[in-house]
Amino acid sequence: MSITKSLSSKEVISILSKFTPCDVSDSLNKHGIANGGFIPNLTNQSPVLNTASSVGKAYTVLYAPKSDPRPAVKQAYIDQVPEDSIVVIGLPLELQTVNAPYVKVNNALYGGLMSTRAQYRKANGSVILGRIRDLDEHNELGYPVWSYGVGTSAPGPLVKVVGINVPLEVKVASLDKDSEVLTINAGDYIIADKNGVVKLEDNEQLNSVLDYIPKRVDADIKVSEDIKNGKPAAESQKLWRSKI
Amino acid sequence: MSITKSLSSKEVISILSKFTPCDVSDSLNKHGIANGGFIPNLTNQSPVLNTASSVGKAYTVLYAPKSDPRPAVKQAYIDQVPEDSIVVIGLPLELQTVNAPYVKVNNALYGGLMSTRAQYRKANGSVILGRIRDLDEHNELGYPVWSYGVGTSAPGPLVKVVGINVPLEVKVASLDKDSEVLTINAGDYIIADKNGVVKLEDNEQLNSVLDYIPKRVDADIKVSEDIKNGKPAAESQKLWRSKI
Amino acid sequence: MSITKSLSSKEVISILSKFTPCDVSDSLNKHGIANGGFIPNLTNQSPVLNTASSVGKAYTVLYAPKSDPRPAVKQAYIDQVPEDSIVVIGLPLELQTVNAPYVKVNNALYGGLMSTRAQYRKANGSVILGRIRDLDEHNELGYPVWSYGVGTSAPGPLVKVVGINVPLEVKVASLDKDSEVLTINAGDYIIADKNGVVKLEDNEQLNSVLDYIPKRVDADIKVSEDIKNGKPAAESQKLWRSKI
Repeated sequence: MSITKSLSSKEVISILSKFTPCDVSDSLNKHGIANGGFIPNLTNQSPVLNTASSVGKAYTVLYAPKSDPRPAVKQAYIDQVPEDSIVVIGLPLELQTVNAPYVKVNNALYGGLMSTRAQYRKANGSVILGRIRDLDEHNELGYPVWSYGVGTSAPGPLVKVVGINVPLEVKVASLDKDSEVLTINAGDYIIADKNGVVKLEDNEQLNSVLDYIPKRVDADIKVSEDIKNGKPAAESQKLWRSKI
Repeated sequence: MSITKSLSSKEVISILSKFTPCDVSDSLNKHGIANGGFIPNLTNQSPVLNTASSVGKAYTVLYAPKSDPRPAVKQAYIDQVPEDSIVVIGLPLELQTVNAPYVKVNNALYGGLMSTRAQYRKANGSVILGRIRDLDEHNELGYPVWSYGVGTSAPGPLVKVVGINVPLEVKVASLDKDSEVLTINAGDYIIADKNGVVKLEDNEQLNSVLDYIPKRVDADIKVSEDIKNGKPAAESQKLWRSKI
Repeated sequence: MSITKSLSSKEVISILSKFTPCDVSDSLNKHGIANGGFIPNLTNQSPVLNTASSVGKAYTVLYAPKSDPRPAVKQAYIDQVPEDSIVVIGLPLELQTVNAPYVKVNNALYGGLMSTRAQYRKANGSVILGRIRDLDEHNELGYPVWSYGVGTSAPGPLVKVVGINVPLEVKVASLDKDSEVLTINAGDYIIADKNGVVKLEDNEQLNSVLDYIPKRVDADIKVSEDIKNGKPAAESQKLWRSKI
């Protein structure tokens, strides 16, 4: 039975929360997306509780150096976090590096008070394309956060927010170029667990992507059982995945 | 009540041990230090026990390649570790990289026997700007160690100690240059926890920095309570921090 | 008593499993190998159980981009994993970087089903010079895995296996060059724990290397006891190591 077009965001989030980002990547591979939607190099700094993954619609925030010609956004982004969102915070491409620590800003972009507020506003997690601080606080809240790294200093002295719900560009390694750029758009679904962070666009393919996920998971459970019973992996994968 | 000038190192360490490096960075930001004293990219390899952070005066050790023209230091640095110090071990700038693994030396600079001796001599922790080995031993001792990474091989075949209580230069990423250099001087206060490592100079600002820390922590506890009661974060931060 | 030449691979593995890679590196240092056999930057993603380290003979697998002129290997490498091996998976030098994330392939090279099969075939662990996925599965199996990093997407869309039991070249940082290349050959002994991964060649030095390990471990236990009793480390190390 295929999933019909009538799914609300809440329903999509509820479905995806039962699966891991690896499951989502498998389906995206099947739908022609070679990188499986993976946004590399993000470490889970506080665990996901009660669900297989943290899922939400990206609420994006762009920081830039204080010297950037764009004015600072007047409102406090954290006080406008939407319910069921994943807060995604990034920096301009020129402050990103393909190699760790992945950003040129040593100050943290995000801390415990921000998670406290995001959780109150019913966000489902935060993904920081930079450093975070206050590791204990996110963990004590039980609020899941991903980041490139950690730090101790607040962002204020170096950077300002210049955009909310704008596209975030992410510079990453590439097989055949010096680097390539991924984009996270506001409203993309974000699925994250300890393996990392995946983005899934809310487009015409969405229902088909969702439809494939549980079928593939079921097939791979069968493969796992076969392997534990001594069957060669290649043969079993071929058998069960052909039945999807 | 302001802290008077008469504080001994032991008293400063006792005060700082109740706070986190994030708390110290907040105060350093307030005192005009934009990076909050943060020394980036150091991972806590064995936890801090019984206090909020590990704190001590930097006892610095500089390693260099065996081919370096400087003679090896005769005495064993580890047998001269002062009480209440943090042992800080580094390499020359030319063996450092802005990107992980942050050093060009794949051998570990430090291991379990060194922590055993440092602990006996009542040091409060070790910060290694390089690799360490013997992860289990530091943890079994309950002695906190930070490092850029891990390894298995001792330093002896590649490097030698060329300076004790000399300034250590640390190459790090920079917002507007290829890299910038931080300096850790012998006698700087080092404050470290799972978020990372902060240095605090023992200068004329010290009392003012110490004075601000608990006030800011109290204000942020109020902010956290407000947020949990539904108040916007920006409004509450403005209110409570203005009262400091 | 020196170890005689008659040791089988199983016996060598049994001996080495009682020691850590750090112990092996100490012996390799003593035998003129300055890097102690250390293969840098590999993180232990699922712990070693019941032994001091995971040990086995390298069963090597080389992935390359799908555009590589070499044909894909017909057989499934995972269905031919030998008993008591360590599965070691790598990429060509041009897809490696000296700095993290150490590879240009963001897709995972290895996942949970592969560990399930490797464990069934009685391999002793897997070392992936790239990303892995399915962190929970390796941990639930109790099967130890090392990797440069994590990911969510399968390798299939980007890379193919082009060699089994071929030498794997590993690009790493160097003290005096831009980079240097280490080689892992099929049949090398691999010893790994949370400190990282060491390779030990199965050559004419092997018995001497094995012979030294327990002697050095015993000496360092004596040093540790001395230090805990207040003896200077340098003096005690000199005393006990001279007796080996």
